[in-house]
Amino acid sequence: MEKLSRNNRVVAITKILIETPNKVIGLNRFSELLNAAKSTISEDIVIVREVLEKLEMGSIETISGAAGGIKFIPSMGKQAREEFANELCEALLEEGRIVPGNFVYLTDIMYNPQIVSKAGVILASHFQNMNIDYIVTVETKGIPLAYEVAKSLGIELVIIRKDNKITEGPTVTINYVSGTSGRIQQMALAKKCMKPSSKCVFIDDFLRGGGTAEGIKDLLKEFDSELVGTGVLVDNVGIENKRTSDYISIIDLEYNNEEEKLNVRPSAFIN
Amino acid sequence: MEKLSRNNRVVAITKILIETPNKVIGLNRFSELLNAAKSTISEDIVIVREVLEKLEMGSIETISGAAGGIKFIPSMGKQAREEFANELCEALLEEGRIVPGNFVYLTDIMYNPQIVSKAGVILASHFQNMNIDYIVTVETKGIPLAYEVAKSLGIELVIIRKDNKITEGPTVTINYVSGTSGRIQQMALAKKCMKPSSKCVFIDDFLRGGGTAEGIKDLLKEFDSELVGTGVLVDNVGIENKRTSDYISIIDLEYNNEEEKLNVRPSAFIN
Repeated sequence: MEKLSRNNRVVAITKILIETPNKVIGLNRFSELLNAAKSTISEDIVIVREVLEKLEMGSIETISGAAGGIKFIPSMGKQAREEFANELCEALLEEGRIVPGNFVYLTDIMYNPQIVSKAGVILASHFQNMNIDYIVTVETKGIPLAYEVAKSLGIELVIIRKDNKITEGPTVTINYVSGTSGRIQQMALAKKCMKPSSKCVFIDDFLRGGGTAEGIKDLLKEFDSELVGTGVLVDNVGIENKRTSDYISIIDLEYNNEEEKLNVRPSAFIN
Repeated sequence: MEKLSRNNRVVAITKILIETPNKVIGLNRFSELLNAAKSTISEDIVIVREVLEKLEMGSIETISGAAGGIKFIPSMGKQAREEFANELCEALLEEGRIVPGNFVYLTDIMYNPQIVSKAGVILASHFQNMNIDYIVTVETKGIPLAYEVAKSLGIELVIIRKDNKITEGPTVTINYVSGTSGRIQQMALAKKCMKPSSKCVFIDDFLRGGGTAEGIKDLLKEFDSELVGTGVLVDNVGIENKRTSDYISIIDLEYNNEEEKLNVRPSAFIN
């Protein structure tokens, strides 16, 4: 291939880095793709790093050694996080969001890639330096968000099922008490899904009583693994005596039953 | 903010475009963020476009008019698609992938962001010019892939549930015959999930008999909407008389019961 100019090369390097967050990419790969010496690529990377950091769009880490290279660490500046959380609050206050039973309808938000991808970067940044092995979630509504957090951290997603699936092989099942319904429910995870001694983070759309997080803790014990943190989009702070305390959220929400009014604000983690 | 150089600006423009595929971004946004004239930004965009197209990493479309701007259209070159499909074939032939009942274990593949994001771009490119309103899937295993296709096309995801959820408000439920189990199953979709007269594409992990696609067609009729295409990661081509024919896949798979052997190859759509 013909030689590319610097401003051509930095475009390609940026694209590849952004698409594979938290994955180490050897300089050889850039060198071959862009037909340039590794020393030239190193200079290009300095430029990409400076711009991303200046605009608070993330950072680039250098990993030395034989398996070395660079990796992109997504993050969002304080102002962008606050703007995002405020927009989310506005969306939550839209008319028609309270459905019969006084549940908050979150489905459209949780399935909107523009929202979920940003929320994923915000939550992932909290767990960046914890050497997490898997992001876990329970089907269904939190899956896209959990997926984005996993992608952002460069790790795999594990989805816990509410029933046993014939297509997944031998499965471990536990019972837990759901915070939403107060009923005993099941969680099932295929044995093949997780290596033992894994550190996991639970991601979900909404936190009520924290019963699901407790259930996941128990299920992970069966895999000799550990739940080391929890992140949700929305925390129902109106519920007292939660069974879990070790979590972060983006939005704090309270529903005032008497006034039939929803109160929402960015969480302490955002501010 | 201080003025940035051209090779600084193209990094920022690339980052923003890649992260919001198929969304129109006004030149004003770049102009303000990068403290540069719109004419300068236009020149920057020419560079970004040329590099992406030269390296077969996607294209940039210009939308004129008051609400105009540019949008990034993800795509993957023929060689990269073939390499990806071949790697996927190798992964499918790994030992231990056939679980009791002769099912192919796909969970690790379907929950791996590195694989799913590429597969999403490949499938999305087929539906790029069809003015799709929603990507639909049925919980659970196809959700990350469906999410990536929706993100790539700049549209929302709709997840059909297997049972009625109390947190989603009024719901339409239908019965259908599942290709996996041969049993009658349910599909449910909240009324708030979809605007009427929508054009939808169904994305899933695995296509067997096509019963699910037929069920979705029926369910969408209840929303005055239409299924205009289907895309899956893996097509079980060993099953005859499928109930759907209008679909694309990335991998064709056949399981030889007598030899207990899996045959896989990139589909006609890839080659």
